[in-house]
Amino acid sequence: MPSEIRALFAMVARPEVVSLAGGAPYVSALPLDVVGDMIGDLVANRGAEALQYGSAQGDVVLRERICDVMALEGITASADDVVVTVGAQQALDLVTKIFVDPGDVVLAEAPSYVGALGTFASYQADVVHVPLDEGGLIPAALRETLDRLTREGRRVKFLYTVPNFQNPSGVTLTTARRAQILEICAAYDVLVIEDNPYGLLGFDGEPTRAMRADDSERVIYLGSFSKTIASGLRVGWALAPHAVRAKLVLAAESAVLCHPALSQVAVREYLTTQPWREQIKSFRELYRSRRDAMLDALDALMPDGCTWTRPGGGFFVWLTLPEGLDAKAMAPRAIAERVAYVPGTGFYADGGGRRNMRLSYCFPEPDRIREGVRRLAGVIESEIRMRDTFGGVRPGAASGGVHTPGPGVV
Amino acid sequence: MPSEIRALFAMVARPEVVSLAGGAPYVSALPLDVVGDMIGDLVANRGAEALQYGSAQGDVVLRERICDVMALEGITASADDVVVTVGAQQALDLVTKIFVDPGDVVLAEAPSYVGALGTFASYQADVVHVPLDEGGLIPAALRETLDRLTREGRRVKFLYTVPNFQNPSGVTLTTARRAQILEICAAYDVLVIEDNPYGLLGFDGEPTRAMRADDSERVIYLGSFSKTIASGLRVGWALAPHAVRAKLVLAAESAVLCHPALSQVAVREYLTTQPWREQIKSFRELYRSRRDAMLDALDALMPDGCTWTRPGGGFFVWLTLPEGLDAKAMAPRAIAERVAYVPGTGFYADGGGRRNMRLSYCFPEPDRIREGVRRLAGVIESEIRMRDTFGGVRPGAASGGVHTPGPGVV
Repeated sequence: MPSEIRALFAMVARPEVVSLAGGAPYVSALPLDVVGDMIGDLVANRGAEALQYGSAQGDVVLRERICDVMALEGITASADDVVVTVGAQQALDLVTKIFVDPGDVVLAEAPSYVGALGTFASYQADVVHVPLDEGGLIPAALRETLDRLTREGRRVKFLYTVPNFQNPSGVTLTTARRAQILEICAAYDVLVIEDNPYGLLGFDGEPTRAMRADDSERVIYLGSFSKTIASGLRVGWALAPHAVRAKLVLAAESAVLCHPALSQVAVREYLTTQPWREQIKSFRELYRSRRDAMLDALDALMPDGCTWTRPGGGFFVWLTLPEGLDAKAMAPRAIAERVAYVPGTGFYADGGGRRNMRLSYCFPEPDRIREGVRRLAGVIESEIRMRDTFGGVRPGAASGGVHTPGPGVV
Repeated sequence: MPSEIRALFAMVARPEVVSLAGGAPYVSALPLDVVGDMIGDLVANRGAEALQYGSAQGDVVLRERICDVMALEGITASADDVVVTVGAQQALDLVTKIFVDPGDVVLAEAPSYVGALGTFASYQADVVHVPLDEGGLIPAALRETLDRLTREGRRVKFLYTVPNFQNPSGVTLTTARRAQILEICAAYDVLVIEDNPYGLLGFDGEPTRAMRADDSERVIYLGSFSKTIASGLRVGWALAPHAVRAKLVLAAESAVLCHPALSQVAVREYLTTQPWREQIKSFRELYRSRRDAMLDALDALMPDGCTWTRPGGGFFVWLTLPEGLDAKAMAPRAIAERVAYVPGTGFYADGGGRRNMRLSYCFPEPDRIREGVRRLAGVIESEIRMRDTFGGVRPGAASGGVHTPGPGVV
């Protein structure tokens, strides 16, 4: 986490601040009594398994349940090709460790998930951004970028993409573009890392078909129960082509020996005995009402010149400030007005995003969201007046290096 | 895990085989009902915390309890210098990631913990072994090795040591040698990684004073609750000098975002509300009786020419076969006789250990231990006859590369 974001989060923890910054799911919406009984019984009756070392690849029945979950997005997979990881973050870390040598290029959307940028930086990858718009990553821009990098003789290891309700932009890659992107990556022989924590949290219709559903050889799919069950269990996974899967298991062993059995058997039991599809539906309704609260408030309150995305699912809205404003410089003033967001610069490896901010609606109640947007609109209006009076941007702190965020920025 | 050990473990899982191979603690000795109730209540009543993301460094109250545990070995530490990790394995992985560049030298005991060797290999460290004897790592040999490496212009990053009831040898570093080793490492400006999963599982008297207790600047201490509470929670930690601690937190964020909150609050609650000192005492009694069963059986049954260590705690006995025998070549024949062990070669990065095996007494009941040793003695006797008849060692499989073991070899 860049130190200035760290400082910001310390302030955000104060109860009088409305935080539109965090990416934490609203786990209190789970039936905690039921889940508590379930986990308590597991330990009491099957503690010899739940409290013991497990295999490095992960529990086989859990991996079968994971295949059931992925089937909702059109994926046909064998449990043998799944590796259970400490959140999808660990899957991303291990994939990067396996594939990336210092100086290799990794392609990522502009903007991209800050935690991924931190991992890429930790292996000294050179992140090259590819722009996105309301329809997700732009295929023509991807092709141009690959053309240029090829001419320059650069080695591109993979494209990292969050196709559904992207973090931080909230946009979703269209179906047509998914096929185009797979085609382009095949032409340039580039792997695709499809990171999909939010795919089942769409507000309209059925889940979008995963890219992995149409290409089992080129796509490494990363999944997570952090947003559909509970983030504190840290159960994620990678579904990888067979040869990569073998390397992932060795890398996971070397990194943590094995995933916590307690978390694994809890998720396995939850998926086996609890109405998990209905619970996801109830999460969807919850987040939809919060998304509506945020968009309604933005529509009603934001000054002219601000624009924002209209997510069809997930947790995030991406807001662009009027020309001449700086979201990072403005952040301390927003905190002083008791509202917090994540400045856009954290989501770029190249200094971009100064006019952007990520607003999340996943955690606060709708009334708090409206109040947060009201405060934010006031801060932006005041910034616009300053700009109009003084004719420029007030200086902000210099852009920090790229680091993984704390869990608050997930 | 080397592929041949992997295959071996598949066989070992059969119930008719007495496994003296695994390093899994006997978690069934915990009061599972009580622990189940405790964890169930935590989820039901504090699920918003137990099922949510946490900080990358780990829960602060848990870190304070960890300081209480370390105080039993003479360590004075601040919770601020502790990082909670996914087992001590992750701490070792992150320390290696931070310090080791490809080709750097890491010093390790001969033999050394196979999981550490796997991690070092994954970062392309060059492991140089330093011999140990019944008193642990030999200071004169350490000095000689450092002398030689210095003359060769090699860069030595750290000494990795398991000072108490070492895995796999079972030996403990004497108090006098601890001081000497710290002195030598200071003279050569080499860090010490003190990995101490078994320190509180000594069978005689008080715990030995940790090396970290006498040097807070040069020693990075790794601890674990895998053997004193439950391995399936995967709660370990690193206690590091302040500047290193900051790097560890960033590396942990990048690797897994944060440690599973459920495991952390479970351990925090257990250490706060349960009689954990008494439980450790009861684990000690349990393992002592199994150690006694194993040593008694070895004394009674092993053929002449075999020698073995006499551990004062922990989980392992290290056995040396008579001249001309090969523990690795013998392993499949032992399995055929329904007894399993880990061949010594896995604990060396340099092909050593062919006459050695690790025997663990932590998991099987005493009667099974005696039966296992009886079967093993029979296999060795038969090997000795073969050697005497044919005058040499039957060829074994070629030595595989070094990998982290599966959890079975912990």
